Amino acid sequence: MTTYHFPRILALLLCTTGLLRAQDKKLIGYTPEAAGKQLELEARFDQQLSRQHIGETIRQLSAHPHHIGSAHGKAVADEILQRFKSYGWDASLATYQVLFPTPKERLLEIPGGYKALLKEPALKEDATSGQEGQLPTYNCWSADGDVTGELVYVNFGLPEDYEYLERAGVSVKGKIVIAKYGRSWRGTKPKVAQEHGAIGCIIYSDPKEDGYYNGDVYPKGAFKNEYGVQRGSILDMVIYPGDPLTPNTGATADARRLKREEATSLLKIPVLPISYHDARPFLESLGGPVAPPEWRGALPLTYHIGPGKEKIHLKLSFDWQIRPCYNVIAKLKGSEWPDEWVVRGNHHDAWVNGAADPISGMASQLEEAKAIGELVKQGYRPRRTLVYCAWDGEEPGLLGSTEWAEDHAAELQQKAVVYINTDNNGRGFLGASGSHALETLVNEVGRDIIDPQTGVSVIARKQAVEALSAATPKLKKEKLAKQGIAIGAMGSGSDYSAFLQHLGIPSLNYGYGGEDAGGEYHSIYDSYDDFVRFKDPGFHYGLALSQTAGHTVLRIADAVNLPFDYRKLYETVNGYVNELTELAAGLRESTLVENQLIRENKYQLVTDTAKHLLPPAIKTAVPYFDFSPLQNALAGLDTVTLALANSKKQGSPAFNKALYQAEQQLLHTAGLPARPWYKHTIYAPGFYTGYGVKTIPGVREAIEQRQWSEVGTQIGAVTAAVNRLTAYLKTAAGI
Amino acid sequence: MTTYHFPRILALLLCTTGLLRAQDKKLIGYTPEAAGKQLELEARFDQQLSRQHIGETIRQLSAHPHHIGSAHGKAVADEILQRFKSYGWDASLATYQVLFPTPKERLLEIPGGYKALLKEPALKEDATSGQEGQLPTYNCWSADGDVTGELVYVNFGLPEDYEYLERAGVSVKGKIVIAKYGRSWRGTKPKVAQEHGAIGCIIYSDPKEDGYYNGDVYPKGAFKNEYGVQRGSILDMVIYPGDPLTPNTGATADARRLKREEATSLLKIPVLPISYHDARPFLESLGGPVAPPEWRGALPLTYHIGPGKEKIHLKLSFDWQIRPCYNVIAKLKGSEWPDEWVVRGNHHDAWVNGAADPISGMASQLEEAKAIGELVKQGYRPRRTLVYCAWDGEEPGLLGSTEWAEDHAAELQQKAVVYINTDNNGRGFLGASGSHALETLVNEVGRDIIDPQTGVSVIARKQAVEALSAATPKLKKEKLAKQGIAIGAMGSGSDYSAFLQHLGIPSLNYGYGGEDAGGEYHSIYDSYDDFVRFKDPGFHYGLALSQTAGHTVLRIADAVNLPFDYRKLYETVNGYVNELTELAAGLRESTLVENQLIRENKYQLVTDTAKHLLPPAIKTAVPYFDFSPLQNALAGLDTVTLALANSKKQGSPAFNKALYQAEQQLLHTAGLPARPWYKHTIYAPGFYTGYGVKTIPGVREAIEQRQWSEVGTQIGAVTAAVNRLTAYLKTAAGI
Repeated sequence: MTTYHFPRILALLLCTTGLLRAQDKKLIGYTPEAAGKQLELEARFDQQLSRQHIGETIRQLSAHPHHIGSAHGKAVADEILQRFKSYGWDASLATYQVLFPTPKERLLEIPGGYKALLKEPALKEDATSGQEGQLPTYNCWSADGDVTGELVYVNFGLPEDYEYLERAGVSVKGKIVIAKYGRSWRGTKPKVAQEHGAIGCIIYSDPKEDGYYNGDVYPKGAFKNEYGVQRGSILDMVIYPGDPLTPNTGATADARRLKREEATSLLKIPVLPISYHDARPFLESLGGPVAPPEWRGALPLTYHIGPGKEKIHLKLSFDWQIRPCYNVIAKLKGSEWPDEWVVRGNHHDAWVNGAADPISGMASQLEEAKAIGELVKQGYRPRRTLVYCAWDGEEPGLLGSTEWAEDHAAELQQKAVVYINTDNNGRGFLGASGSHALETLVNEVGRDIIDPQTGVSVIARKQAVEALSAATPKLKKEKLAKQGIAIGAMGSGSDYSAFLQHLGIPSLNYGYGGEDAGGEYHSIYDSYDDFVRFKDPGFHYGLALSQTAGHTVLRIADAVNLPFDYRKLYETVNGYVNELTELAAGLRESTLVENQLIRENKYQLVTDTAKHLLPPAIKTAVPYFDFSPLQNALAGLDTVTLALANSKKQGSPAFNKALYQAEQQLLHTAGLPARPWYKHTIYAPGFYTGYGVKTIPGVREAIEQRQWSEVGTQIGAVTAAVNRLTAYLKTAAGI
Repeated sequence: MTTYHFPRILALLLCTTGLLRAQDKKLIGYTPEAAGKQLELEARFDQQLSRQHIGETIRQLSAHPHHIGSAHGKAVADEILQRFKSYGWDASLATYQVLFPTPKERLLEIPGGYKALLKEPALKEDATSGQEGQLPTYNCWSADGDVTGELVYVNFGLPEDYEYLERAGVSVKGKIVIAKYGRSWRGTKPKVAQEHGAIGCIIYSDPKEDGYYNGDVYPKGAFKNEYGVQRGSILDMVIYPGDPLTPNTGATADARRLKREEATSLLKIPVLPISYHDARPFLESLGGPVAPPEWRGALPLTYHIGPGKEKIHLKLSFDWQIRPCYNVIAKLKGSEWPDEWVVRGNHHDAWVNGAADPISGMASQLEEAKAIGELVKQGYRPRRTLVYCAWDGEEPGLLGSTEWAEDHAAELQQKAVVYINTDNNGRGFLGASGSHALETLVNEVGRDIIDPQTGVSVIARKQAVEALSAATPKLKKEKLAKQGIAIGAMGSGSDYSAFLQHLGIPSLNYGYGGEDAGGEYHSIYDSYDDFVRFKDPGFHYGLALSQTAGHTVLRIADAVNLPFDYRKLYETVNGYVNELTELAAGLRESTLVENQLIRENKYQLVTDTAKHLLPPAIKTAVPYFDFSPLQNALAGLDTVTLALANSKKQGSPAFNKALYQAEQQLLHTAGLPARPWYKHTIYAPGFYTGYGVKTIPGVREAIEQRQWSEVGTQIGAVTAAVNRLTAYLKTAAGI
């Protein structure tokens, strides 16, 4: 393995031309000669891609509401199956039987007063918005419930919001809370509300985060109009994703199932999402203290915390049916190493029509499959096996991908070299996250993809945005001097979770975006009509995504030396450990000062006596932690990752297998505290952030949640994982 | 002179009791024995103060609209005159003839569409809100004008907002701008608009800064309702305040007057303030780019920059009359040093009823005069002469105080030991700003004033708020360790300006506030009814203000050694110079990086191509400046201010006179660039901030405005001023 570093002069060239001549390029895992051939192959691949065809696919697959369990959902799966077959792939359905509740009854009202509409209107400017078969606006996995209680506004519903409520003397116990979308994943909001004793939870889209505050509303502009509602799952998937009844195992027809009450990923309270039109009367009904500035949204009213003078009434029931979940699995057998799989996936189910989410990504993936099929017809065969997957049931909780991955866990841990995920896609900047051993590869791939709007490489454009958006001149300078981009770490929110965080399979997630902002997400307005106006007019970024994911697939499939760069993993994890030491030191300093402010009565002196705001509670002092075992482990990884490039075993099948299986060494068998399904010691979704990643989650969350005694245990688990990886790579490389 | 430093143990005691026993106290300028007597005098003074009487004064003086030139304005002056006389003072009117325009015609409309109401409605909850004689809603000193043009939204109307407009390709030339109140002084907004070629300016109160966003609106709560309008002056008083026709000279009946066209403090375009109810249709009429996030307010609409599809029409005319300006001047002759004056002032004119602004401060000042009058009846005589002033015409532009100060400039520069100003006052924290040689005195005074709500000293409470609101744990720790408070520097916005910035008389401004926020400012709702509910219920802080200002007056009046502490001035100015070197270094670094980002096309790469936003213009590089002359001058001041306390001349009349006249050494005869009226080299209102102070303004504004060649010249002027002060103090102290 060779580590590629951008020469500075090339980076400058990139800025002007965005392209290098093929003969100037090095590719990780390839000899110069093989690299030239691979780039020619990619050029031929590109010639097979058609953005018009991507657009046609989006139009066709988003033509009807097609959620899991629906007739059109099955039709979409069948269409994808037929497409793969027609492209020359060996495709079949992999069907699971999963729980998926849909609403029977939805009622939200101020008894004797306002009754919420709970309905998005059809618009003449949006051809599919009035179709039959739309799922009503709801949060999937809400409990059944019929509750009446006082209402309390809890801001974003974060743990710290409840700390403020405690200072304000407002309890949510026995009450219904109203939280707004944003800042944390939606499922975190009712979970934290439930932890604090709430009996129901309303989640609404405030126009500050999602509405007229951001731009003209649909259909005039892209942003959420007053009636738009964000549907979405509130499965507690930071415990485990997938079918709640079959954790750790595939939800086959005959699988052993938990009872619903036993499923720890299900909340116990009723939860309902509403529009800002519906939210306004409820917010206006609130009394109590005025909400602090950070809590205020963009509705034309004074935000109060509550409770209100009147009780409100929320009644919800669901059908709780087991439904078929149709994954499509398409394979193209490798010519040399058929038992090494390059797995690629995107889901096909939507909340409603889902032109952007997920069809924009699905269409790009199908375009890759079509292009590769054409290359095969021209005589090309990938050296490794390609496995292209179209997942069902992602929206309720990554059901299809999780069940398939759990069902094939052992085989995947043997064979899967990588899992490459996409989901929704739009105009803007490259988003790339995943296993950091793949960072070099991602940079090399992105270096050759031309941004459709600016003509520079997508990496150069991403570097520009990172430099411009850095907070200080000093950080801007650093970003300007940096070679390539850092890829992000993955939390949750799409189908990579089981692969990476449960099975330790190196994973990537790609998607373009940032100039496609709008309010269509999980609403009936995520339609083809919306998409072609606001998300990716001309489907240029659909094409860019096909290129990005397709080139990555092909480079991994054909590389003699698998293109993993564990040096980048070492550097990244080392950076995380530095962050953790700074986190602990910062928390220690702020705790000391805050406690001093509290003990010296500064809060009482400063707080407006008319506001009756209590001082915060004294917090336990932050002890000093022994990070040295982990730092020593990283010193070992430092040495071995520097030496890997010189291993005599490079290119051997055994060494390649060791490279792609190495990330499994970072799994901790017992998993994370209170959520054993999550076994990766470096990447996990945050317990209180949901989609948002926590890196080195065991240690980071123990510090953030002030579980001091847990910190050392978790440092121990990560240390052991890093030492396992070091020893494993040493043995594999024979050094 | 002795410098007092809080012993730490006392500071701790203060936190618990807020009070020290009299015998434990040192007072700057007093022997221990004299200090004890002075504190007893202050205790007797306090016994004469009545918060009920302060409330009664507020009720009486705010009973009718009483702007300058109105019948009730004259009646208020007469009442104050009678009061001073009845308290035993030698009082008289000092009348000037000043220009003061009131509206003849006001029209704002979308022709064929919305016509602005331009009217605040009477409320049954506010007894004076429906009275006759209210000034209509207007910006005083707007030009006459009848203009029709496209409308452009310019955010707060700051210079940097126009930089963004240029990037967005939107010009205001020949157009009318709409700016919102906040961030800069209101007069800066039309001034900058005019500089950019606008033909008219509307200023509105956005509910984000001043309305329902902040709390319940009047009359339910304190905040601005949709019809409330902030009147106010737009005199370009950073050029010079006071009567525009008589700069530098008192506007006596026979004074030489400029023609109106010659007055450089008058703008040339029509300007009108409006409510958010009136602003909404105009903002909704705008097209063009969506305003960037920092520009968006709290109205329920998408903020666009414009221009709008339709032109709008603004028509204003004014009567431009010369009107009498009635200052009340009350004196109490000093027993020992009658030619040393302690001058104290507060204005009496209001925009409408002005219960808070200015009557809350006026009532406290009258209460002091009453109490001192009682002490005099009991046999007390101040050693220095007290001069209590009630100013007319402050609202249009500090007219009364400026004309009086200009008229008595020579006498004041000889006799005025200090000028102590107050204005509106309310519940909350001590605000104290002014000449830093008085910082020690202010801390000693505040140490003995008990905060009515918390029972600690007002200094301890202020320290607590400074510690809590510091940005980082490190800064919080520093604030917690600090002894006493730093007083602020004065910009403009009340009647101290002529005394401090034109004449170099040491000045202070006091006021409580921070828990009295509301939307009544300069509206018909600044009423007694509003005041007693939201500003200072029970008039506790009115009493605290009487104590604070009164004790300060008495301590200066009776001190054998005048309580100036030039060490604090040295420390403060030295801090400002450090700020300036950091400002230059930071600007240099950010300019380099920004220019690199622009030259490397990063802005084009990052900017959403759909938004057509140009990159910023390349800026000139920031040269290195020679601060060493000023740093050397400060080293000299360092030495002399350390030695002052040991001067053998302490307590001599000549030394005392030198101490209070010393600040005049900091005046620069030529004044600041483009505004010679402002002569103080350390304190001035900012050219583009208005009320907001710029310290060491010549140098700071040259850097901020990128006038590189001016920086050295201004460093020279400040250096000369500091050297003059050092030499002067050396001579005076005989060291």
